[in-house]
Amino acid sequence: MSERLYLFDTTLRDGAQTTGIDFSLADKIAIASLLDQIGIDYVEGGYPGANPLDTEFFAQKRTRKAAFTAFGMTRRAGRSVANDPGIAALLEADADAICFVAKSWDYHVHVALEISLEDNLAGIRESVAAAKTRGREVMLDCEHFFDGYKANPDYALACAKAAYEAGARWVVLCDTNGGTLPEEVARIVTEVRKHVPGENLGIHAHDDCGCAVANSLAAVEAGVRQIQGTLNGLGERCGNANLVTLLATLALKQPWAERFALKAGVDELARLTQVSRALDELLNRAPNRHAPYVGASAFATKAGIHASAVMKDPRTYEHVDPAHVGNLRRVLVSDQGGKSNIRAELERIGISLDKDDPRLNRVLEEVKRKESQGYAYEGADASFYLLVKRVLGEVPGYFLVDRFSVNVERRYNAVGDLTTVAEAIVKVMLDGEVMISAAEGNGPVNALDVALRKDLGKYQRFIDDLELVDYKVRVFQGGTDAVTRVLIESRDRDGDIWATVGVSPNIIDASFEALLDSIVYKLVMRGAPA
Amino acid sequence: MSERLYLFDTTLRDGAQTTGIDFSLADKIAIASLLDQIGIDYVEGGYPGANPLDTEFFAQKRTRKAAFTAFGMTRRAGRSVANDPGIAALLEADADAICFVAKSWDYHVHVALEISLEDNLAGIRESVAAAKTRGREVMLDCEHFFDGYKANPDYALACAKAAYEAGARWVVLCDTNGGTLPEEVARIVTEVRKHVPGENLGIHAHDDCGCAVANSLAAVEAGVRQIQGTLNGLGERCGNANLVTLLATLALKQPWAERFALKAGVDELARLTQVSRALDELLNRAPNRHAPYVGASAFATKAGIHASAVMKDPRTYEHVDPAHVGNLRRVLVSDQGGKSNIRAELERIGISLDKDDPRLNRVLEEVKRKESQGYAYEGADASFYLLVKRVLGEVPGYFLVDRFSVNVERRYNAVGDLTTVAEAIVKVMLDGEVMISAAEGNGPVNALDVALRKDLGKYQRFIDDLELVDYKVRVFQGGTDAVTRVLIESRDRDGDIWATVGVSPNIIDASFEALLDSIVYKLVMRGAPA
Repeated sequence: MSERLYLFDTTLRDGAQTTGIDFSLADKIAIASLLDQIGIDYVEGGYPGANPLDTEFFAQKRTRKAAFTAFGMTRRAGRSVANDPGIAALLEADADAICFVAKSWDYHVHVALEISLEDNLAGIRESVAAAKTRGREVMLDCEHFFDGYKANPDYALACAKAAYEAGARWVVLCDTNGGTLPEEVARIVTEVRKHVPGENLGIHAHDDCGCAVANSLAAVEAGVRQIQGTLNGLGERCGNANLVTLLATLALKQPWAERFALKAGVDELARLTQVSRALDELLNRAPNRHAPYVGASAFATKAGIHASAVMKDPRTYEHVDPAHVGNLRRVLVSDQGGKSNIRAELERIGISLDKDDPRLNRVLEEVKRKESQGYAYEGADASFYLLVKRVLGEVPGYFLVDRFSVNVERRYNAVGDLTTVAEAIVKVMLDGEVMISAAEGNGPVNALDVALRKDLGKYQRFIDDLELVDYKVRVFQGGTDAVTRVLIESRDRDGDIWATVGVSPNIIDASFEALLDSIVYKLVMRGAPA
Repeated sequence: MSERLYLFDTTLRDGAQTTGIDFSLADKIAIASLLDQIGIDYVEGGYPGANPLDTEFFAQKRTRKAAFTAFGMTRRAGRSVANDPGIAALLEADADAICFVAKSWDYHVHVALEISLEDNLAGIRESVAAAKTRGREVMLDCEHFFDGYKANPDYALACAKAAYEAGARWVVLCDTNGGTLPEEVARIVTEVRKHVPGENLGIHAHDDCGCAVANSLAAVEAGVRQIQGTLNGLGERCGNANLVTLLATLALKQPWAERFALKAGVDELARLTQVSRALDELLNRAPNRHAPYVGASAFATKAGIHASAVMKDPRTYEHVDPAHVGNLRRVLVSDQGGKSNIRAELERIGISLDKDDPRLNRVLEEVKRKESQGYAYEGADASFYLLVKRVLGEVPGYFLVDRFSVNVERRYNAVGDLTTVAEAIVKVMLDGEVMISAAEGNGPVNALDVALRKDLGKYQRFIDDLELVDYKVRVFQGGTDAVTRVLIESRDRDGDIWATVGVSPNIIDASFEALLDSIVYKLVMRGAPA
């Protein structure tokens, strides 16, 4: 009989501490939905009451499958639970569970909180009890637990016990500074289990020693049954335990897979690569090619001697089958893997080609050629669709952009203020006719977009409701030359969203290509006449 | 008495398998010298005889302190050692040590090598003995050792014993596919030690489960005394064990620091951050901000409540002192932080303000105002420095950009090819004089950058060596208006790198602001006259 193991995601709370990351409400909603796709048990959404964004995020439940969890501090010193606005905000949040945080290192209680050790314990007891009375599943993050345990084991244990005895479902042992190593984690968890049952214990590890994943595994081995972590290991400093890696290991590797049952099944696991990359897309970060399980290079073989052996029998060179996590094998000498990959991708966007169809090779060649120039189609389905349809000769030449020109000028205007004006001119040929449109915009890409869509003659009615919703830029160093990749997301009034990509050394050129693809895609999908 | 532990670097051999990495001879020489700076015991330089580059690299000894190690296969089946050109190339290399590799998984011997198990063992014995006779320190990498041990423990052990009995100083247990987890590593190493002494055993781990560092530590705990790894964890697929992380942990963390002696002393350790980043510089990769110990964010605190506690006593929020590894403490400026964050940040960039200084409030107000507009200073130290200096009235108005204009035009050129041309005009006022410069570029930002720096009169000599190294764009949806944030990284010939930020609805405007900050920062730092 396998035991149940629980995964708790804190991307939206501890992950928000990552340097350079600044979630919007839309980001948070999108990430909660990603987490629901991979079978996470608890999604910690943030800190309602601490800032307007998190309060708004908690105005409604944002997960369909995971327990939606609010985070906050135990009651303040000198206040009753009923009189603490922080507690009130937590209880008002539309959440399934509440995760309190309290210090469990005596030194921090003295120096950071400046309250008595007993007052801190009372705060834990009363806060946990209050949330439980209100029908929430309750947990306590014991901040600095491992350092606290080393300094004063009795007090650290007293904090854990206070929460457990007040009715907390989970008591989470946090390695807040990330300095604890696996053996120490195992030793201390073993001690704690003498006071709180393992099925009520969780682990929260940070990667400051490069051991967050191993620390989490060591804690489970020693008896805890909840693991906290983040997507792609986001988090303050060196990040939190990477839940993507842990989920794959726990589901696919022995003895874990045999010993433990997860909420995630085969389907959830197969979405892991896609979800991991979607998060990076959302944050406009380059995905880590070398990430365990989900990185683009995680199953790539470069060595010549290995490559031929991989072809003979992949299992002897791969510790797991990449398909289980939705990733792909990459053997640089082979077209065979590439072809089946492409077929799978085509099927996903609704194009079916027989595996012996010679056009499949032409599509593969074109994808390789484009990728070598810097194109990436993972986040640009509409451009990928057009690429394939162009190879198949199924995209009409609706119109031709003969010329465009964009000008941005900053100067002092008539009343002496510094202003910047962007304007664009686009010359389009359509059915033998020449149409020139000009427009101003709040930037060069906006001006170009407006000018391009101002007058497309008979096609105008097909794209009238098209709207730009996102624009992302990434610059690569390809040798000595920088190449710019632009990703554009468009939307129409039906709520349909599609993404296109453009690549060029020139950002305006790259943007224009993505804008053009966006329009052409809509014309194809709406069956505009050639 | 502490026991000696040996570090073996394979950046130049296994690290060369990293996707996208292609070392030149100059790269290899530079990296060998970096490794000498941080007290590595063995530097594996490559595979002499396998390719001209590695043969040339081994024409002379490339390390001053570390044992320079050549890598190659044991003798081929059906050949004597004396008649094997591969062995000859290894023996001719100007190396202190030779590391042979041989398969220790019976399945691979059958399928990949297609030779008998006994022939493989004879190859190990004869190759090790031959190298030892020639006065080299000899070691054997047992490829696929852990998978091999699980499939056929007797044969895997026979390979290890064959090398040891033939005189190998080190028998290295390789987790070639990276699929072994810490507990399994510990269990198998414990078994192997019954046949080969721990002081002759090494571990070679890969990061496919995110456990390469923990696996290495588990192996040492179980008795091995040599660790193989790479700088920054370079390597095929998910990379090798990160020697930078391991060196810091072994030198600074208990019980390791107490139990083991390393070649690296205090001075070598203090160079760790610099060496880690120098490698990325050499490879033209952005350093991982979140790398344990050496990442720019490894000791960065974002949360306001934490920040004030860090100021009170950093040791309670840092598992080691960043200075030991040559890194810096950072308290991030962000809307989550308050006055104590700002003061800590000011101190870091060399500006000291008393906590009651009224200008501190003005700085904080200005930071908040800017951040509400979309500025982010976490990745833009130079702009933050200028912001503060401007509030303090300490930035001279060196020159004034009166006007700029950028034009991007796409059209068919005289021979009928579609081309895009970007050009910029910048009008600068300096000491009452007007200077107009124009330039072409491969995009609008490049054209603007070149035009702006073409003629700055008496300031020209201060910025002649300035160079753009990175350009990043993020677009936010602020209601209906999109705001663009541009981050620019610049470098000068001293290797100094600084980052600036610009924000505007117009990407050209935002880029211009960041470019301008980059120049002004350099003028301030170089003490250019007002």
